[in-house]
Amino acid sequence: MDSWIDTTLTPDFSIHNLPFGIFSTIGSLPRPGVAIGDKIVDLQALHKTGCLHHLQIPAETLDQRVLNPLISLGKSTTNQLRLQLQHWLSAHHDNPLRHNAHVLVNRRDAAMHLPVAVGDYTDFYASMDHATNVGKMFRDPDNALLPNWKHLPVGYHGRASSIVVSGTSIHRPYGQVKPPTASAPVFKPSARLDFELEVAMVLGKENPLGQPIDIQHSEDYIFGYVLFNDWSARDIQAWEYVPLGPFLGKNFGSSVSPWIVTTEALSKFKVNGQVQDPPVLPYLKENGNTHYDIELSVYIKPDGGREAQVCRTNLSYMYWSPGQMLAHHTSNGCNLRVGDLLASGTISGPEPHQFGSMLELSWSGSRPIDLGQGIHRHFLEDHDTVTMRGHAVQGTVSLGFGEVTGQILPSLPWRG
Amino acid sequence: MDSWIDTTLTPDFSIHNLPFGIFSTIGSLPRPGVAIGDKIVDLQALHKTGCLHHLQIPAETLDQRVLNPLISLGKSTTNQLRLQLQHWLSAHHDNPLRHNAHVLVNRRDAAMHLPVAVGDYTDFYASMDHATNVGKMFRDPDNALLPNWKHLPVGYHGRASSIVVSGTSIHRPYGQVKPPTASAPVFKPSARLDFELEVAMVLGKENPLGQPIDIQHSEDYIFGYVLFNDWSARDIQAWEYVPLGPFLGKNFGSSVSPWIVTTEALSKFKVNGQVQDPPVLPYLKENGNTHYDIELSVYIKPDGGREAQVCRTNLSYMYWSPGQMLAHHTSNGCNLRVGDLLASGTISGPEPHQFGSMLELSWSGSRPIDLGQGIHRHFLEDHDTVTMRGHAVQGTVSLGFGEVTGQILPSLPWRG
Repeated sequence: MDSWIDTTLTPDFSIHNLPFGIFSTIGSLPRPGVAIGDKIVDLQALHKTGCLHHLQIPAETLDQRVLNPLISLGKSTTNQLRLQLQHWLSAHHDNPLRHNAHVLVNRRDAAMHLPVAVGDYTDFYASMDHATNVGKMFRDPDNALLPNWKHLPVGYHGRASSIVVSGTSIHRPYGQVKPPTASAPVFKPSARLDFELEVAMVLGKENPLGQPIDIQHSEDYIFGYVLFNDWSARDIQAWEYVPLGPFLGKNFGSSVSPWIVTTEALSKFKVNGQVQDPPVLPYLKENGNTHYDIELSVYIKPDGGREAQVCRTNLSYMYWSPGQMLAHHTSNGCNLRVGDLLASGTISGPEPHQFGSMLELSWSGSRPIDLGQGIHRHFLEDHDTVTMRGHAVQGTVSLGFGEVTGQILPSLPWRG
Repeated sequence: MDSWIDTTLTPDFSIHNLPFGIFSTIGSLPRPGVAIGDKIVDLQALHKTGCLHHLQIPAETLDQRVLNPLISLGKSTTNQLRLQLQHWLSAHHDNPLRHNAHVLVNRRDAAMHLPVAVGDYTDFYASMDHATNVGKMFRDPDNALLPNWKHLPVGYHGRASSIVVSGTSIHRPYGQVKPPTASAPVFKPSARLDFELEVAMVLGKENPLGQPIDIQHSEDYIFGYVLFNDWSARDIQAWEYVPLGPFLGKNFGSSVSPWIVTTEALSKFKVNGQVQDPPVLPYLKENGNTHYDIELSVYIKPDGGREAQVCRTNLSYMYWSPGQMLAHHTSNGCNLRVGDLLASGTISGPEPHQFGSMLELSWSGSRPIDLGQGIHRHFLEDHDTVTMRGHAVQGTVSLGFGEVTGQILPSLPWRG
């Protein structure tokens, strides 16, 4: 299958992908679109031509600055919409997309926005390699994993208000930190600013309070996935996090890629995860392929320098699957809502070049990370730009997530 | 000052209070109101009489199921509205409230709803007595407080989706628990279900991402306060919470009182808190009275039995003030939004009858809590109803929060 829109230079947005996002052009309001090659299908404009009539999509769901109302129509509708677009974009005969040129917007002319209003954002800790690395560095090299880790996908609630779309700059945060040799904490800009390579599910269906989601039905609830950079201030986190978990070390900003790649587009890339030993409790037992084979990479671009790859790993290294995270999250009756984000936690692989954070790559600041051109890093410096990318390939079928990028700006003068 | 509406039987809703909430009557949609005695001023109906014209409140802010749009107009508007109502409700001459009887709804005819759409909910851990009790029980009796505790108000992010209004029943949650003698966890209904007595601030003004709030301006951002019961499953919490904090042990439900008591109504009850030693860092230093003198009490009503008081404490026992929580939360640039809740964490006092949770009252299940009538509890049993109340008195001026109540229902048959 191929599109009559050329996608050879933009393989992420192939005919097999068709991700959903929110875009705007000069002089127009943010609205829903679907990406193909270097174009965006303007869903609002397409709807106005009347050709989506058979899908029974209310016009007001497309007259919105977020995708929540459209997604809330359910997969029966959004899947049909995506398949209809796929048909029109690949069919060589005349069809509404071919003879309504105005519904195809150039991506280079569009600004991208946060694709959903996020009600709640949950962050998991689902990579065994990451949890082991952190445990070795901060606790006990011989007992790196805590006793609960292999029995449940450990997670915690993050901050929804500070989730921003790719391209948004982040100011280096101030915070309380306690140097190891000091007797009392000091308040100053973070000196151990980090990224975390993650992938987040975007919820597409709610469960009522009190009603858990059966793991066998978990895919019905996951609209799609985005890349997620959970910026972290390691020095603030280290001082504050006992006993209630990370707070100000994490909630000053998290960046998402603007295009939501649907669960259906990713279905071709499902693989099995590693064997879970000890076996999980029945409510976490899953059938079939549970994981995704998606190549992930992270790049740092120093101010005025060239982008250097610092991590290359794969989503299939995760110990816990998306279905397990969803089933565990709701096992106590906790209700999820459309637009909620469930992030994986840092995705690391077993090899040192597969570590998904600078904390691990520099082994807590003890080993320099080589960016080439004679430049090294332990943690992020002002004006560094971090970019994450994700691609999946299966035979002749490929797609990608685009990217999530963000630059670190210096701390603002203190005015709190 | 007194009202021509009799408030002697409902002293919580005196002329000095005038809290804001969302109510509905049979056949009508939820809408904003202000409580006085056994009445509610229907703000939508009052606005339609034209008598609020001088306050420039857009009609659409009152045509809403939540208070966020009204609160977003700012304190200059909502304070004026409250003072205007106070004037009309206390003035004996003819005025719009006296000659428009239809704008006064009987509270007994109204159903109350969640007053705000909560964007993010943060829970602090700001009572030293509570933190010390928990530290003694679970860590080290001689070093109950962790090193960071007196330097910053420890807090974490909670779940916004499962916040419910007073009167909503909560099903006993399932979860993973690990009995001390077992080698592996089991999945079953919680056997250590608890309440937590808390008070939550409702945010009334946002700060942009990256811009901390100066502690001297913190009151500008706090619209008001509600009672908050942060239901907790101690057995689920104990197994899951290391290292990222509480998750499923807390996020199956949190209950709020329906009426938001404004910061201005509470200003008469400000007192100073205890001396903070060691002194706090400059960004947490505050002038004037920082705390509130509010009596708080908790009651348990067994199925078919009488309500028994199990806790009587005071908000003034808190170590950290509301202003300190707000300033710390935003010190890294974290943005707060209108409707966000910042809860205090369990409010305990120094005496055993002042402990704000059953975990402390029963000392981790080792001491029975006497409910009278020969009934005892260690933790909550099915069909128990928990009610929390709050009152403030200063000379002839008094007001209260009404109550937050909720009943525990048995676990639903497992269907996850």
